[in-house]
Amino acid sequence: MQRVKTDVVIVGAGPVGLFAVFELGLYDLKCHLIDILDRPGGQCAELYPEKPIYDIPAWPVISGHDLTEKLLQQIEPFHPTFHFNRMVTSLERLDGGGYLVTTDEGEEFECKVVVIAAGGGSFQPKRPPVPGIEAYEGTSVFYSVRRMEEFRDRDVLIVGGGDSALDWTLNLQPIVRSLTLVHRRDQFRAAPDSVAKMTALRDAGKITFQMGQVTSIIGRDGVMQGAIVKGPDGAVEVTADRMLPFFGLTMKLGPIANWGLNLHENLIPVDTARFETSEPGIFAIGDINWYAGKLKLILSGFHEAALMTQAAKRIVHPDDRVVFQYTTSSTDLQKKLGVGGAR
Amino acid sequence: MQRVKTDVVIVGAGPVGLFAVFELGLYDLKCHLIDILDRPGGQCAELYPEKPIYDIPAWPVISGHDLTEKLLQQIEPFHPTFHFNRMVTSLERLDGGGYLVTTDEGEEFECKVVVIAAGGGSFQPKRPPVPGIEAYEGTSVFYSVRRMEEFRDRDVLIVGGGDSALDWTLNLQPIVRSLTLVHRRDQFRAAPDSVAKMTALRDAGKITFQMGQVTSIIGRDGVMQGAIVKGPDGAVEVTADRMLPFFGLTMKLGPIANWGLNLHENLIPVDTARFETSEPGIFAIGDINWYAGKLKLILSGFHEAALMTQAAKRIVHPDDRVVFQYTTSSTDLQKKLGVGGAR
Repeated sequence: MQRVKTDVVIVGAGPVGLFAVFELGLYDLKCHLIDILDRPGGQCAELYPEKPIYDIPAWPVISGHDLTEKLLQQIEPFHPTFHFNRMVTSLERLDGGGYLVTTDEGEEFECKVVVIAAGGGSFQPKRPPVPGIEAYEGTSVFYSVRRMEEFRDRDVLIVGGGDSALDWTLNLQPIVRSLTLVHRRDQFRAAPDSVAKMTALRDAGKITFQMGQVTSIIGRDGVMQGAIVKGPDGAVEVTADRMLPFFGLTMKLGPIANWGLNLHENLIPVDTARFETSEPGIFAIGDINWYAGKLKLILSGFHEAALMTQAAKRIVHPDDRVVFQYTTSSTDLQKKLGVGGAR
Repeated sequence: MQRVKTDVVIVGAGPVGLFAVFELGLYDLKCHLIDILDRPGGQCAELYPEKPIYDIPAWPVISGHDLTEKLLQQIEPFHPTFHFNRMVTSLERLDGGGYLVTTDEGEEFECKVVVIAAGGGSFQPKRPPVPGIEAYEGTSVFYSVRRMEEFRDRDVLIVGGGDSALDWTLNLQPIVRSLTLVHRRDQFRAAPDSVAKMTALRDAGKITFQMGQVTSIIGRDGVMQGAIVKGPDGAVEVTADRMLPFFGLTMKLGPIANWGLNLHENLIPVDTARFETSEPGIFAIGDINWYAGKLKLILSGFHEAALMTQAAKRIVHPDDRVVFQYTTSSTDLQKKLGVGGAR
């Protein structure tokens, strides 16, 4: 796999990671962003896309979704490259300076500066309370569908009653050998249209719906053969060699804990002039950092992105004497933003 | 004059002072704002109301005027009290704690917390290069019109070719005894409508226009009798007992220099956890403060306002154990904002 070379890798594409692209872009620093979610926006997109936020300055009210959209529009002139559905698994210092960033998809990024804007850490799927399930994870049990082909001609068991469970029921049904949907009740917290489509598939005998909970997995050595589902009418055995539990996401620090950075109660201590971690060239901004007075506010992450940028540009271009400028008055910055300029 | 009692006095009603009202308001702290300008917005309103700003997060582009409007809308639920056209002249520590803030209009404000959000300092009128003009300031020479009555039945000399000079020519003409407008050329940098109205008054003989520059004032002991205006056709004597030069504004630190605060190259050093000055209970946020890494960005002032608020609430309500909350999830905060809440 080819190694990507770039100025800056930003870990996390939430609002603070997005705004960092803007600040870094003003100084011509090129960014790649890596996020475990499948789209930009972080918590705003994942946890409360429709919820109103009232404390973004000059936005009396804005939804998480709209905030993300506005930030994407603002950074468009800088053409960042996004890598979604990936987790950064390691950070390694390179001999010549800079870092090698590796993802769980095996990609490698070589960069001068790493900006950790990972919020509360990685969103990770909640593990259902099934004894011994860990032994099957990654071989028979998956918490997301990265490649649909892995489920072709399989006996698939999907567990859950939300949009993810329903969407994947509908998407996988045409290619699997059999599909069983398990949910603890027969009501679903999903788009009514998806529920209607799933019900039609069930009524046509194309999928099986089983009310209840998975209590154990049948199989050995990570190879699953089926599961026991306990419901109101007792326990049944379901044949399945693939299981997809969709029990929502939880926030975990994840591999960041193993990157050799100083940590303070799962947060990364930084200084307040550069927002740099204990490792030179690795910065932490937004909810994941800690300093005296820290508030986990999006607007604080924006400020941190601006100050971090001044330090980052001196690392990437140590000989450049670029001075601090204002977008309101600098025709140079306005050119980068692709706007008219001069008044 | 009655002494106003309030939680917080904010010196400066620019974008950072305005957003401070929002953050303080979330914790029920009541604010009075004092500004030397005649309207909110500070530099944004005075220097570049129409100029686009590109680096306000989630605003790909916004004018200084619109930024001010949005912030005013955002703080409306907290009903701040504005005092315009005033300069804070002194800050005095009170025996029982808190401060007494005095303006050049003689008003007194008693408060627990002072927030200096004065940007580059006070906007102060530029003094025209007329020898000895200082001796007439405040008696015959004025740089703004605070009370129109002071000009009734006077022989008024207005100097300048911008909007202020033209607006006051039009506004004062009906009540003065005579009005002479002096400008170094016969073109004006003012609203075309104002220029047209001024030209009509001149053509009707209701005002006199004199092209040239004021080179000296005639009078003694601060009492002006006239001025010498040198123009392309030589020098003329103009009768006038009031002069209003409108040569634009310049930024000066002003009386802040005399408040006993530590200063660093005309900036106020603060810590980065509370943004407090060398005096407990006096905070400095926005362009006027200094700390390692400081950037004079509006978005940094917003961040500073949020962190300052946590310290300010502990001063105003030392026994309150109010915890940090989010507008997105706290129904308590949503009630204060006057919005629907619960989803």
